[in-house]
Amino acid sequence: MNPGSLPGGAPSAFDALYGLELVSVSDEEVRARLEVREHHLQPAGFVHGGVVASMAEAMASHATNLVVSGDGRTAQGLANHTSFVRPLGGPAISAVARRRHRGRTTWIWDVEMTDADDRLCALTRMTIAVR
Amino acid sequence: MNPGSLPGGAPSAFDALYGLELVSVSDEEVRARLEVREHHLQPAGFVHGGVVASMAEAMASHATNLVVSGDGRTAQGLANHTSFVRPLGGPAISAVARRRHRGRTTWIWDVEMTDADDRLCALTRMTIAVR
Amino acid sequence: MNPGSLPGGAPSAFDALYGLELVSVSDEEVRARLEVREHHLQPAGFVHGGVVASMAEAMASHATNLVVSGDGRTAQGLANHTSFVRPLGGPAISAVARRRHRGRTTWIWDVEMTDADDRLCALTRMTIAVR
Amino acid sequence: MNPGSLPGGAPSAFDALYGLELVSVSDEEVRARLEVREHHLQPAGFVHGGVVASMAEAMASHATNLVVSGDGRTAQGLANHTSFVRPLGGPAISAVARRRHRGRTTWIWDVEMTDADDRLCALTRMTIAVR
Repeated sequence: MNPGSLPGGAPSAFDALYGLELVSVSDEEVRARLEVREHHLQPAGFVHGGVVASMAEAMASHATNLVVSGDGRTAQGLANHTSFVRPLGGPAISAVARRRHRGRTTWIWDVEMTDADDRLCALTRMTIAVR
Repeated sequence: MNPGSLPGGAPSAFDALYGLELVSVSDEEVRARLEVREHHLQPAGFVHGGVVASMAEAMASHATNLVVSGDGRTAQGLANHTSFVRPLGGPAISAVARRRHRGRTTWIWDVEMTDADDRLCALTRMTIAVR
Repeated sequence: MNPGSLPGGAPSAFDALYGLELVSVSDEEVRARLEVREHHLQPAGFVHGGVVASMAEAMASHATNLVVSGDGRTAQGLANHTSFVRPLGGPAISAVARRRHRGRTTWIWDVEMTDADDRLCALTRMTIAVR
Repeated sequence: MNPGSLPGGAPSAFDALYGLELVSVSDEEVRARLEVREHHLQPAGFVHGGVVASMAEAMASHATNLVVSGDGRTAQGLANHTSFVRPLGGPAISAVARRRHRGRTTWIWDVEMTDADDRLCALTRMTIAVR
């Protein structure tokens, strides 16, 4: 992989469906964003928690896979633990994933989601299994 | 709410986007299903972990809200902790959410996702804040 | 292992320190109890959350190890996710761990802690890595 | 509270039992250590996962309580999510808790445990309820 490369677009069909945009990807940090639209909302008018969990899942899995696929191994989400600390509204969500652990069989990433006013709204701890 | 009622359709715009179908909803158990389509997949061809997290989030939040909104209160996801135990493929996912705790300020639901062969593929523990 | 055997005593030095008593152990269910004493409490007079997490960790790890050590493999805690739903007091805590998943590389157990009035006070989801 | 004060000693009876030593406490960061002894070990000779969970629980709860008790409120652990990334041995464990969120009703802390060679061995995300 090229640390710091700019892949653009979404890393999977589902990420394309909801509109994830990767901004930068390295083996230590991933940045992404989402333009909030009507179809992201739950009944109270905030961004559905599943959107947040999906973004974190995609960012961590994609970055890990870019690295380990070079060795013929695959990365798969083992646990997605998302905590919501403030309702997320529009117009956009920024997400930063930082790698916290790179082991032989598991990687751990912490992902932070902030709103357009740069307020922390959600935190995900992603555990990725490498096989 | 009518425990055991059959709402049908998805409880929110995002759930409609990816295709959640509620089968039954009560204040103790929610059942739902998803027909797996191309747009749910991640690059390895399995269902994206975010789809699973989204289903659990929707089921638990929706059922809690149906109850607490009667008292003028609202339910909001506080934590979505999804563990993946087997890659999920098609043609369909079945999900059952069972309430484990009904407190004054938090409810906890356990959600199980099984594939068409009835194999357990993912588990979510949802903590819902009631305010 | 003998499913349903009654090992008695604590499965490790640390468990003996705080006083865990195993009641029954099988590869699908473990039961344990703790007599609450002064040295288990936090400043507000309730049982320290770490005691609860320790009990769950011990129960799930011990039961998994009894099985997998027969194949020359070892079980090790990968994640201990404890949710507290009601402050725990004395005179005793009952704990039941039920296996939810038995995979090649991970096992998952759900542990419930109840007080002497049989009220649910804490829930732990333990993920055990088998290597 | 005095951010940066040095309380010394353990914040509760249970923390004294297993030997937690607070090194520094502020409303944004807590540092602690533990001298590893025989009574901390599980059967494989590593530090019991419950010891790690207990340390994180104590550090986050104590620091939050120091702040909110000034307003007549109390802090209580709501979720203790500990991930183990490397077996922990002696002679000592260092722990740093950093506050990630300070809300009206919940605080979130991330705690890192490192061994004497400064290798990351465990990560805890503590959610504290403030009432």
